[in-house]
Amino acid sequence: MVRPLTLAVLVSAALLAGGALPAQEQASPAETAHEAREAQMHLQAISLGQLGPMAQGEAEYDAAVAQAAADNLHHLAQMLEAPFYWTPGSAQGEVEGSRALPAIWENMEDVNAKITAFQEAAAQLQTAAGTDLAGLQSAIGGVGEACGACHDAYRADEE
Amino acid sequence: MVRPLTLAVLVSAALLAGGALPAQEQASPAETAHEAREAQMHLQAISLGQLGPMAQGEAEYDAAVAQAAADNLHHLAQMLEAPFYWTPGSAQGEVEGSRALPAIWENMEDVNAKITAFQEAAAQLQTAAGTDLAGLQSAIGGVGEACGACHDAYRADEE
Repeated sequence: MVRPLTLAVLVSAALLAGGALPAQEQASPAETAHEAREAQMHLQAISLGQLGPMAQGEAEYDAAVAQAAADNLHHLAQMLEAPFYWTPGSAQGEVEGSRALPAIWENMEDVNAKITAFQEAAAQLQTAAGTDLAGLQSAIGGVGEACGACHDAYRADEE
Repeated sequence: MVRPLTLAVLVSAALLAGGALPAQEQASPAETAHEAREAQMHLQAISLGQLGPMAQGEAEYDAAVAQAAADNLHHLAQMLEAPFYWTPGSAQGEVEGSRALPAIWENMEDVNAKITAFQEAAAQLQTAAGTDLAGLQSAIGGVGEACGACHDAYRADEE
């Protein structure tokens, strides 16, 4: 068994992390899955927000920054395959704020194939992004296409 | 160079991801670092919110769910070492909503040591969580202690 004190530390750490307690305490698994997708997409956007401007020449190329952003994007791509993210009942209309189309749950095999494609593109970006600007530029488009492929098929437009 | 069309796809994918566009467009690097930490802590809390109740016997142990949550926690622990998360100027009082204490930036070496300790605890949890309930219980306390060690030293209490 886990020592009670250790668990108290753990639980308070978990619940207090990010100030998530109020929402987290009440949320259903489907609501939590939606929250997880939002946080995940936000972190993906932040990594791409560092890489995109460098690739476009709008920010100075920095190999260390590019590598760290690509490393994190690669970790995030791995995380997306957790079945929890795709909890049934978390589609648009089922959970407030969700833009996940019901088609996700009718095509889970294709969703997983698109996640795999994203993982492969992110792995290529991780290899190339920290080498030089040309490397970053050669690999970032594949990630953008993987993002778009899934969003075009499975995400509702913003209202 | 990156083809313009590919970049358009990439940038719109990045900006639209998670509906992050309105905040993201305007945010300073320090504000974005704070947002990244919040999203990161939220995802960590969600993983621990799946593992904790199982370890405590409040939810039925499910090896696949436990493994996926521990896998993701391990990825998240790796991500925390990106220097971007610790952008100067993102402490409490410098960015709205931040509870990061200025001590972080005076003790970056210790912060990184605590991140390494979290990574090691998360790696142990990843190895043990999907084996059986006893494995999960044996390893989860170390993660809670790593969370607490950093939060006790470097995070302000909630107001």
